[in-house]
Amino acid sequence: MDIATVIGLVAGFFFFAMSIILDKGLTGLLAFWNAPSVMITFGGAFASVLIIHPMDKFINALKSVTKAFKNTIVDEAGVIRNIIELSNVARKEGLLALEEAADNIDDDFLKKGIMLVVDGTDPELVRNILETELIFIGGRHKEVASFWEKVAEMGPAWGMIGTLIGLINMLGSLDDPSAIGPAMAVALLTTMYGSLLANLVATPFAEKLKIKSGQEMLLKEVMIEGLLSIQAGENPRVIEEKLKAFLAPVLRASLNPNEKEGE
Amino acid sequence: MDIATVIGLVAGFFFFAMSIILDKGLTGLLAFWNAPSVMITFGGAFASVLIIHPMDKFINALKSVTKAFKNTIVDEAGVIRNIIELSNVARKEGLLALEEAADNIDDDFLKKGIMLVVDGTDPELVRNILETELIFIGGRHKEVASFWEKVAEMGPAWGMIGTLIGLINMLGSLDDPSAIGPAMAVALLTTMYGSLLANLVATPFAEKLKIKSGQEMLLKEVMIEGLLSIQAGENPRVIEEKLKAFLAPVLRASLNPNEKEGE
Amino acid sequence: MDIATVIGLVAGFFFFAMSIILDKGLTGLLAFWNAPSVMITFGGAFASVLIIHPMDKFINALKSVTKAFKNTIVDEAGVIRNIIELSNVARKEGLLALEEAADNIDDDFLKKGIMLVVDGTDPELVRNILETELIFIGGRHKEVASFWEKVAEMGPAWGMIGTLIGLINMLGSLDDPSAIGPAMAVALLTTMYGSLLANLVATPFAEKLKIKSGQEMLLKEVMIEGLLSIQAGENPRVIEEKLKAFLAPVLRASLNPNEKEGE
Amino acid sequence: MDIATVIGLVAGFFFFAMSIILDKGLTGLLAFWNAPSVMITFGGAFASVLIIHPMDKFINALKSVTKAFKNTIVDEAGVIRNIIELSNVARKEGLLALEEAADNIDDDFLKKGIMLVVDGTDPELVRNILETELIFIGGRHKEVASFWEKVAEMGPAWGMIGTLIGLINMLGSLDDPSAIGPAMAVALLTTMYGSLLANLVATPFAEKLKIKSGQEMLLKEVMIEGLLSIQAGENPRVIEEKLKAFLAPVLRASLNPNEKEGE
Amino acid sequence: MDIATVIGLVAGFFFFAMSIILDKGLTGLLAFWNAPSVMITFGGAFASVLIIHPMDKFINALKSVTKAFKNTIVDEAGVIRNIIELSNVARKEGLLALEEAADNIDDDFLKKGIMLVVDGTDPELVRNILETELIFIGGRHKEVASFWEKVAEMGPAWGMIGTLIGLINMLGSLDDPSAIGPAMAVALLTTMYGSLLANLVATPFAEKLKIKSGQEMLLKEVMIEGLLSIQAGENPRVIEEKLKAFLAPVLRASLNPNEKEGE
Repeated sequence: MDIATVIGLVAGFFFFAMSIILDKGLTGLLAFWNAPSVMITFGGAFASVLIIHPMDKFINALKSVTKAFKNTIVDEAGVIRNIIELSNVARKEGLLALEEAADNIDDDFLKKGIMLVVDGTDPELVRNILETELIFIGGRHKEVASFWEKVAEMGPAWGMIGTLIGLINMLGSLDDPSAIGPAMAVALLTTMYGSLLANLVATPFAEKLKIKSGQEMLLKEVMIEGLLSIQAGENPRVIEEKLKAFLAPVLRASLNPNEKEGE
Repeated sequence: MDIATVIGLVAGFFFFAMSIILDKGLTGLLAFWNAPSVMITFGGAFASVLIIHPMDKFINALKSVTKAFKNTIVDEAGVIRNIIELSNVARKEGLLALEEAADNIDDDFLKKGIMLVVDGTDPELVRNILETELIFIGGRHKEVASFWEKVAEMGPAWGMIGTLIGLINMLGSLDDPSAIGPAMAVALLTTMYGSLLANLVATPFAEKLKIKSGQEMLLKEVMIEGLLSIQAGENPRVIEEKLKAFLAPVLRASLNPNEKEGE
Repeated sequence: MDIATVIGLVAGFFFFAMSIILDKGLTGLLAFWNAPSVMITFGGAFASVLIIHPMDKFINALKSVTKAFKNTIVDEAGVIRNIIELSNVARKEGLLALEEAADNIDDDFLKKGIMLVVDGTDPELVRNILETELIFIGGRHKEVASFWEKVAEMGPAWGMIGTLIGLINMLGSLDDPSAIGPAMAVALLTTMYGSLLANLVATPFAEKLKIKSGQEMLLKEVMIEGLLSIQAGENPRVIEEKLKAFLAPVLRASLNPNEKEGE
Repeated sequence: MDIATVIGLVAGFFFFAMSIILDKGLTGLLAFWNAPSVMITFGGAFASVLIIHPMDKFINALKSVTKAFKNTIVDEAGVIRNIIELSNVARKEGLLALEEAADNIDDDFLKKGIMLVVDGTDPELVRNILETELIFIGGRHKEVASFWEKVAEMGPAWGMIGTLIGLINMLGSLDDPSAIGPAMAVALLTTMYGSLLANLVATPFAEKLKIKSGQEMLLKEVMIEGLLSIQAGENPRVIEEKLKAFLAPVLRASLNPNEKEGE
Repeated sequence: MDIATVIGLVAGFFFFAMSIILDKGLTGLLAFWNAPSVMITFGGAFASVLIIHPMDKFINALKSVTKAFKNTIVDEAGVIRNIIELSNVARKEGLLALEEAADNIDDDFLKKGIMLVVDGTDPELVRNILETELIFIGGRHKEVASFWEKVAEMGPAWGMIGTLIGLINMLGSLDDPSAIGPAMAVALLTTMYGSLLANLVATPFAEKLKIKSGQEMLLKEVMIEGLLSIQAGENPRVIEEKLKAFLAPVLRASLNPNEKEGE
């Protein structure tokens, strides 16, 4: 569980509800629920977003909601340790011995890279294949983040359309002055729904997915750099030095606790 | 038929209509139609967009509407299979044998590339010609998407101009208080029209066209990469490995169902 | 005459006027003319834009208005035909024979390029000189487009300033309730003027100038590519193949009507 | 004196004042001066901008106001003439003779470049040093322009904060209905101040500084290009041809009045 | 202490408070404090920002507040002097002698670079390692600045949500006309809080952190350039010339006071 996503969402709705309850009591919350307003804001926003995306990408992106809640473990130090280990194996027992070592590795991307190296693929081609794959993984991540960015754009737009509908309806029949206030209140609800959809859900989700994508991409870049160094037969010590630059200083100690680190 | 475009459009208009009907009944819809308001919003927006574009590009872009509804079949796996087949032909029977094989291929771009290869064109020139062509196809796609982006910009702008005209007209003659409400309702209509034009039609169309363009461009990049590999006499196995990186993992199985895929 | 610019402008003003006339009759138009409002919106906007630009560039950009109305003929096929002809001349009679052939060419840029080739200038230097020139032509185009973008930014800004002045004036003396409506109507006029200036004139002009610039730049790029190929003594057939990629498929037939074209 | 800056500023304030005077007479202007409103808008905006910039950069940027009024003479043709002259000197009397010739040159950047050439610095290093310097000059220009962009952003923001304060104060005590109008008028003043600060002063200043920076940078690029050509011992005729591409066509005649120029 | 940050913050709040006090006296300030309004604006904004960032990055970024107040001493001249000194040491006593010299250096980045040089690391690898590290330092800076940019985005968004809640509550019960004014005043408070959070705190902090990051990055680039020059055994005089280009002209005198500087 990505605890920040959960806490943020819960806190956001809590502050929202509390600011109503403090003013109007618990029953005040009822005034903030209006089914047709929900329909036009959320329905309209997702209708627009549906036109934008081919069906399969739309469904795919909706499913990505779970990703914002999952706690991706980005164990950079672990990956670097793995690669150094692999480079030691390659040094002592040759590149072919990596095949067996690959069995203990969970990451599909790293595994695929090792198999390419074991197969004796040309280094240029290994880099080519892995980087193309990396670009496509990044592209798929971007598609999903952009889906939520579109939701964040369409939510407030349809909120405003809903409010305009409400105002036009209200202004068309001003016979009963006492109905004006409540009618306007309802009209404003859609703007508020749209704003909540954008600022509490869609924008934060898009941003979180982007940050997670960035972490994943970085990890995979470390893998490519490491694999190519192994294939080039570089010294494990040099590889470590090279890959350590990818680590935040605070994480370097965890890589090699019994080594004195200057920074 | 691009089912997502159709469902999205229908759903958007349905939610819009329902939110009126639920409040004011079916006759309530009548209050949302006003011919002069339609004229100023849509007429004005397209007038501005017409100034922006030379006449032929304007007409061309209007015709592109159909493209948002057509279901472009992007069969990446099929294209890759085609190329691998071609590379096998070239290997066994020489580059000239590709001419005959090209007869079974529908895609004009791929066909043209094969003819260039068959003609013995210099590889550098083949890449040059095909990439220039690709850039221009992309440029034409961008022109059409940008047309809809301009519509999405001009719709709300003219909606606001219409509302200002309505307000100025209303404020100029406040003699009859009972006319103020309906006059303001009508004034707000143009803002709503502009918002619907932008958020339910123009922006989604622009985005969908961009996504479709991206898929088409990618496919053509795969073709260029593949053709150059064939011309260079690369091993079909290597070509497959190279091109597979362009595929989403879920599609790789479809490329070669009886091969065990690690990812 | 660029017919799209004219039709767009006329249509825009027609829709604007009609939406007033339909509501208030022909005399209703009078309410939309207010000299001080015109002064603050247009005067203020151009004052701000004048601060931005050095005097000579300001005058230059104002003159560019005509360019949005002129019908630039972008005869890509003609240019390509010219270049192929030149390459034939160069092949048969040598580079020096191009001097005479250049006399029939109208375009100064192409002419200059030919003279450089005739003078035996180093190919690297020819490319260098022509591309620097191209960059500067593009830079001058961008300056003019950016002028209109600034007008499009400053128009609504001064429209709002005018409306604020009107509101402040009105709110300062609320003695006569019957004067409030008309006063607000006048106050809103400047916002409307600013919006019209931006969305019917300035933004469309800026965009049209950008599109025309793009077409002109492309044409000049074709020329550079062609000239360098001629200087390199490339085969006219290859040059044609190369340059044809710059053409939209529909135009390729016009280049060589008696040749079967695959796409 | 940069006449455009002065005319623009004067005209802007004139149109602003006139639109008030035409409506309310000269005494009407008094209603547009309110010391606390000035304080919150300008004070707040500059307070925010002060947090953004380290103290020395803040003071530096404030001083840059004068630069928007100064008439930078950008004599490209003169610089090119200078460089051609220098190249003639270098050709006839050797690179060392440039030292003496440099005494007649005002521009520090050009002088520095000549001294590097005279000192026999490696061409690669000359380019390196001069381009690094150019990047830093550009960086300092950008800092100053960005200062005014921040003012243009913070002015309207604090204008709105001021208006909100005014509205909240007014709404808190609605006892005296006759005070509502004037109170709202005062509340709107800050929004107007912020808008004037942004659109008549800060944005135009930022843009003008950017344009001037662009001209200065271009001039220096011409110098670098010329100096390196001199150091490489290129023919003065070739250098002229090369540098002329940096000139607008209309200026080329001034470079060499007795030469027929095609464009 | 970064005096500009402190003065700016204090001045901003002072102008804010004064504009209230001048109108309503000291007790007027009380009307601008409302606990539930504070809760929804600040609570909501930080809840949204919390969803965006993984927990550790959120806490990290909050801690970065102190950085906007700390006075980072960017002693470019000092660093350049250090490097020239080191280059003299390296010239006279060899690269190994740098180890001892490194003891007097505070900067961890420079120290690490020296150790790499002393260890006889390949120059390409030294550049590789140091630049990768630089990119990551820049990335971490960007993360923190982007945190404050998100706060600046979410503050006004939640301010508007708060105002909508207040308006809806107010419009739902218009029984007591005398309560409308104060209720609207309270509703507007959240918009004002959001605006203050964005424009007085979050945006300025983000910008200041970016400027400080830029200065730090530049300093480190000078170090890399210098270290590689030392390793290449370049002449200290040449290194000085090279690095001086990184300095603003006014700072060059401080580098070498007894040398006549042309600019």
